[in-house]
Amino acid sequence: MTVRELRVSLGERSYPILIGPGLLGRSDALSKLAQGRQVAVVTNDTVAALYEARLAASLAGATTRLSIRLPDGEAYKNWESLDRIFERLLRERFDRQCLLVALGGGVIGDITGFAAAVYQRGVDFVQVPTTLLAQVDSSVGGKTAINHPLGKNMIGAFHQPKLVLADVETLRTLPPRELSAGLAEMIKHGAIADPGYLARLERDLAALRACDPAALADAVLRSCEIKAAVVAADEREAGVRATLNFGHTFGHAIEAGLGYGQWLHGEAVGAGMVMASDLSCRLGLLEAPVLERLRGTIAAAGLPVRGPAWSFERYVELMSVDKKAEQGTPKFVLLERLGAARVQRVPDAALRATLSACSG
Amino acid sequence: MTVRELRVSLGERSYPILIGPGLLGRSDALSKLAQGRQVAVVTNDTVAALYEARLAASLAGATTRLSIRLPDGEAYKNWESLDRIFERLLRERFDRQCLLVALGGGVIGDITGFAAAVYQRGVDFVQVPTTLLAQVDSSVGGKTAINHPLGKNMIGAFHQPKLVLADVETLRTLPPRELSAGLAEMIKHGAIADPGYLARLERDLAALRACDPAALADAVLRSCEIKAAVVAADEREAGVRATLNFGHTFGHAIEAGLGYGQWLHGEAVGAGMVMASDLSCRLGLLEAPVLERLRGTIAAAGLPVRGPAWSFERYVELMSVDKKAEQGTPKFVLLERLGAARVQRVPDAALRATLSACSG
Repeated sequence: MTVRELRVSLGERSYPILIGPGLLGRSDALSKLAQGRQVAVVTNDTVAALYEARLAASLAGATTRLSIRLPDGEAYKNWESLDRIFERLLRERFDRQCLLVALGGGVIGDITGFAAAVYQRGVDFVQVPTTLLAQVDSSVGGKTAINHPLGKNMIGAFHQPKLVLADVETLRTLPPRELSAGLAEMIKHGAIADPGYLARLERDLAALRACDPAALADAVLRSCEIKAAVVAADEREAGVRATLNFGHTFGHAIEAGLGYGQWLHGEAVGAGMVMASDLSCRLGLLEAPVLERLRGTIAAAGLPVRGPAWSFERYVELMSVDKKAEQGTPKFVLLERLGAARVQRVPDAALRATLSACSG
Repeated sequence: MTVRELRVSLGERSYPILIGPGLLGRSDALSKLAQGRQVAVVTNDTVAALYEARLAASLAGATTRLSIRLPDGEAYKNWESLDRIFERLLRERFDRQCLLVALGGGVIGDITGFAAAVYQRGVDFVQVPTTLLAQVDSSVGGKTAINHPLGKNMIGAFHQPKLVLADVETLRTLPPRELSAGLAEMIKHGAIADPGYLARLERDLAALRACDPAALADAVLRSCEIKAAVVAADEREAGVRATLNFGHTFGHAIEAGLGYGQWLHGEAVGAGMVMASDLSCRLGLLEAPVLERLRGTIAAAGLPVRGPAWSFERYVELMSVDKKAEQGTPKFVLLERLGAARVQRVPDAALRATLSACSG
């Protein structure tokens, strides 16, 4: 199978995304970047045991190679993990010319990217996403962050990687629940930007859930294309990029309310997309059959379609610290039809009806 | 006295610096920025008691006004102070459209700027520097940072303010030691970029140390012009901006070795400039009379001209974690003559001779 390549166009911050099976062990692009530099691979114990050795060949030209292992899970996407990276880099005298490599899922990618954004005011980094969610979402677009006890992704930066290597072979070891979480973001890409892609995902759902490499590589490519196009048009989320948050106002509230890591991010987004679609219907934007179709697809992907049984007040409280909120009033990404989304505030009554219909 | 204004030219990140007495209480520029936004003033107890009330008029149009007070001193330029800001902003539901105002010296400016760089991946901020050092140095150029236990300014970002208000009246309450620390950076500007300005500083030194407002405003303006020109040419310190670190390789080592806050930053830079000039002489770049003139000017400004009595190995150890170091080898900003600086590595023998001549 050939390696698929696309380029994220961001002027001097442009970078390539390479997609295909077996990339980890034989990447010329990574070798070139690592040549003659201090390189630190940031990963967690689970991923390190499976894949860190394969990366070694691509990093052979580094002057120093460091392995930094963080505890596994969203609960550790915090200041302590970040400081562990800084401490190792400083002790090993890593300078501003060093390169960080994020080997793992979204948590590793977000922390490593943020570490790269602020270590000595900014160093280069490479994303090697090993989960479906990270391959189609968090490793594309340069959003990096850690969580704060008072809010998810509240502390972060926009910092673009120099290269993304998405090796679909790594998805074979992914638990089914994590595969489904990745599918949530792919369904999102179809829903907000490309109805044809959504139809293809629906058709290939069984192959994707069975980790068919060709089906995965094609779908990862299309999702990355959609996300890259949106990011290129609006790197710092002043406008259209916000539509990528479809399902996320509800989703973030669910994750924060349950405590990070109880539901996977993609699971919360799955239920969140149903809730946002329901809200779009109630506001007269979306037709009911489209809502039902999305609900069915999300369920067939192995994702929840209802939020936790909380009061209206609890949901609103949780949503009002969302980064899309303005002066405490949350905003929502709504669907006008498949392939077309917009961002707006909504009346309390509609929100109340959606929460009552789609949670508990 | 008229308000002096200059503009830092950085494309869409350009911003004005306003300099003059009495600006705090009557700034149209600040009023406009604060209008209709959530505004947080970050300051310390000392500065708050003296100047926070004066700012109130300029912030009258804010929807929410928050005062965040940090402990005073370089020792608190750390993660704990930063998190104190995040915690207050999150509790008060400050969104991405909020504005932070740094009211204080370099420590407050650096922490607040870094908080603004990473809070919700970046919000606007204004610098209101109340020390001479901050007015001529840290508030111009967008470098923000906190210290790490293993190194000064190791964690940070480039994040430009929307406005800098330098009210020279605030310098009247500055302890003489802090005034001298500011003079160190001004002497540096003259030494690396403008011999005529250096001569003017030497001539006006008594008036400056006596806080003459016109002399201060003129000198602050010229220092800001020099720094702004260097920053505009090289925002992210890929080249010429590094010359602003004249005296800083030694200076940072002194600060780190003594423990932050023992010597003021400007004091360490004062001794560091003498050491760097001595090194420049030993390498055949600079004439001995220029070294002696600089040593005299730095002493006359009330600054130390010798480093602490440490071994060569101790100095090298401390300097090898400097951000200008590459793979553990420190680089130095050397003078070729007054007004011309360059960055390079140096032979151990010359460094050893300089340390033995200029420390202890």
